[in-house]
Amino acid sequence: MQTALEAAILGPRGANPLVGSVLVDAHGRILATGHHRGAGTYHAERDCLTRALAAGVTDFSSTTLYTTLEPCTHYGRQPACTDLISDAGVRTVLVGARDPSPNGGGVEVLRTRGTEVVDGILREQCEKLNHRWNEAAGQQRIFVTVHLAQSIDARIAAADGTSQWITSETSREHTHMIRQRVDAILVGTNTVRTDDPRLTARDERGALTPAQPLRAVMGLSDVPEKAQLKQGRPEGEGWIHLRTRDPLKALKDLATTQHNGHPVKHVLVEGGQSVLSAFFAADLVDEIFLYTAPLILGSGRSSLADLGVTTLTEARRYTLDVADGGPTTIMDNDVCIHLQPEPKGAR
Amino acid sequence: MQTALEAAILGPRGANPLVGSVLVDAHGRILATGHHRGAGTYHAERDCLTRALAAGVTDFSSTTLYTTLEPCTHYGRQPACTDLISDAGVRTVLVGARDPSPNGGGVEVLRTRGTEVVDGILREQCEKLNHRWNEAAGQQRIFVTVHLAQSIDARIAAADGTSQWITSETSREHTHMIRQRVDAILVGTNTVRTDDPRLTARDERGALTPAQPLRAVMGLSDVPEKAQLKQGRPEGEGWIHLRTRDPLKALKDLATTQHNGHPVKHVLVEGGQSVLSAFFAADLVDEIFLYTAPLILGSGRSSLADLGVTTLTEARRYTLDVADGGPTTIMDNDVCIHLQPEPKGAR
Ligand SMILES: NC(=O)c1ccc[n+]([C@@H]2O[C@H](COP(=O)([O-])OP(=O)(O)OC[C@H]3O[C@@H](n4cnc5c(N)ncnc54)[C@H](OP(=O)(O)O)[C@@H]3O)[C@@H](O)[C@H]2O)c1
Ligand SMILES: NC(=O)c1ccc[n+]([C@@H]2O[C@H](COP(=O)([O-])OP(=O)(O)OC[C@H]3O[C@@H](n4cnc5c(N)ncnc54)[C@H](OP(=O)(O)O)[C@@H]3O)[C@@H](O)[C@H]2O)c1
Repeated sequence: MQTALEAAILGPRGANPLVGSVLVDAHGRILATGHHRGAGTYHAERDCLTRALAAGVTDFSSTTLYTTLEPCTHYGRQPACTDLISDAGVRTVLVGARDPSPNGGGVEVLRTRGTEVVDGILREQCEKLNHRWNEAAGQQRIFVTVHLAQSIDARIAAADGTSQWITSETSREHTHMIRQRVDAILVGTNTVRTDDPRLTARDERGALTPAQPLRAVMGLSDVPEKAQLKQGRPEGEGWIHLRTRDPLKALKDLATTQHNGHPVKHVLVEGGQSVLSAFFAADLVDEIFLYTAPLILGSGRSSLADLGVTTLTEARRYTLDVADGGPTTIMDNDVCIHLQPEPKGAR
Repeated sequence: MQTALEAAILGPRGANPLVGSVLVDAHGRILATGHHRGAGTYHAERDCLTRALAAGVTDFSSTTLYTTLEPCTHYGRQPACTDLISDAGVRTVLVGARDPSPNGGGVEVLRTRGTEVVDGILREQCEKLNHRWNEAAGQQRIFVTVHLAQSIDARIAAADGTSQWITSETSREHTHMIRQRVDAILVGTNTVRTDDPRLTARDERGALTPAQPLRAVMGLSDVPEKAQLKQGRPEGEGWIHLRTRDPLKALKDLATTQHNGHPVKHVLVEGGQSVLSAFFAADLVDEIFLYTAPLILGSGRSSLADLGVTTLTEARRYTLDVADGGPTTIMDNDVCIHLQPEPKGAR
């Protein structure tokens, strides 16, 4: 299960939880490992079984599958893992954590089909792996990733408003990679007015990538007619306006919006200061990519504003995230720190 | 020389430049490598020759010594490397960069003694290694390391002033290790008034380490009679008051101060906001340890204030420093980023 956990953390956070699987033979030798690589790709169990097949395994009747999360029972963009497992004829399934979402119940399904299932192997670690995803699922809200790109002194623009570019090209390419991965990008009305961003996902050569995220603007004031993110199209065609200042309301509205053929389940909040601060204040940030560019501005707009924290013990606390590339990545001259909220009760 | 450079960067920056040395035999096989580990320790050449002796080398007459910096001619806390090299009988010395300080001239000294010397091997890289140290030496001023310990949003205290502790225990232990390495620690009068720090170097168990740095307070107002850093002693006994707001003047005054039997050559500037900003504004920061604690305060004192930068192109620019542990180190839940000024003309 430890190996399955190590595989799981290679995947990206988002609409789906991190999951890792390991298939072993009757002697406990590893036949294949697999992990989930984000919404729309193979689930960990399928990835693992596919690799086992590719490695020449034909008879699964004496194999055991370790999986960090209960196999799903749900046909979505991927077939149900419970079906794959019982069709393959895996003898025993060892499960880490239960799935609190409507996709759960795989343990019971497999048992009724005669597969031996042992539940709760390294449960605590397997649950902790997705503690924040579980919480979001429990609240029936979409997963929120935040992008913070700032100078050493946490500024996102110089005194005269110049901000292009504080971060390195490699950092910006990383952001475009994250944009490809999410269902929607969200910014405030003022970022649209001041920066007029396109909010598209582009590859290293600047070309649009095949699947574009939904572009969402949050706030009460109108989105300028000529805003680039509109691309001259009416609302609903690639962009929407969330007429609210309440981040939870914004997430609810996004969750009921269809984009690229499925509901929005993962949003990247890019800014600016007011919108980011509102998400942090409401504890609605599930993952942070913090890019620090090694320069000092001394004045100019800060990345974040007042969250209502008055004393150190009230600070919003995060923790280094080992998933998806690890806690720190050097991007040219910038450092990207990958964070997630501290699990409840951690201190 | 590449190997010598790789050895050099293992050392700490400070009063002395980074230097690495490699001794090879007549066939170019490496017999020993060495590097400098900071003021008061063996120079790289001596470290390398000592290791060669320990490895059983007795006859140096067919050996070649690569060294990233010209060997010194100076008896300070360490004997002159030129003497060690000619006494050992090393045949050839390959030198990277010349030493711009009064310790230079080793190339000529060795030549007059009959040692073959080739100068300028990978000179550019060897000079770049210590570009800022060279600059400080050229200005005849002491080397300045800065400590910045802050939240994600670059705050050093919450709105109510609480600041203990923003960073992790491991980060604070690292700071104490840096305190041991420097000759002096400098803070502003207001940090003394508000935090009343002891400014001592302590080990992991909180015990004072053998050599304590000089404690320096900068600013025009008086240092409170009861300030802990005075330890009840008169000025000059372990602490001094630099009655100036000019960082260059403060460095000059420090340079003429004797402490632990030698003049101050390396200072750690710890804060607060005003003093740090003055050093950054005057471009008098040679090295930065930036500790980011993964928490958000939203309000409270920022680590830095206005430096007179009004637009992005005027920003003070730094670059990741690969020396001394590398550009990023995880310290519990904090990330420490190690930076140095961008070489002049780098963009
Ligand atoms: N470096 C970066 O990564 C980055 C990224 C994005 C933006 N930026 C910079 O950020 C700056 C813009 O920051 P900003 O704070 O002015 O813009 P913002 O957060 O994009 O937009 C602020 C506006 O959003 C609306 N809003 C929605 N929800 C809100 C809430 N909960 N609280 C307050 N307002 C809410 C308000 O307008 P209504 O009246 O319409 O409700 C408010 O005026 C620009 O300088 C831009 O360059 C930098
Ligand atoms: N987290 C950390 O790493 C850390 C470290 C240290 C301090 N701090 C925090 O920093 C805060 C103190 O910041 P601060 O800015 O008030 O204190 P500061 O920089 O320690 O002291 C400011 C005072 O220094 C004098 N000064 C000397 N040179 C100056 C210059 N070039 N420009 C302006 N003033 C100069 C001035 O007083 P005179 O009238 O005497 O000239 C000024 O009032 C405290 O809250 C403390 O907790 C945090």
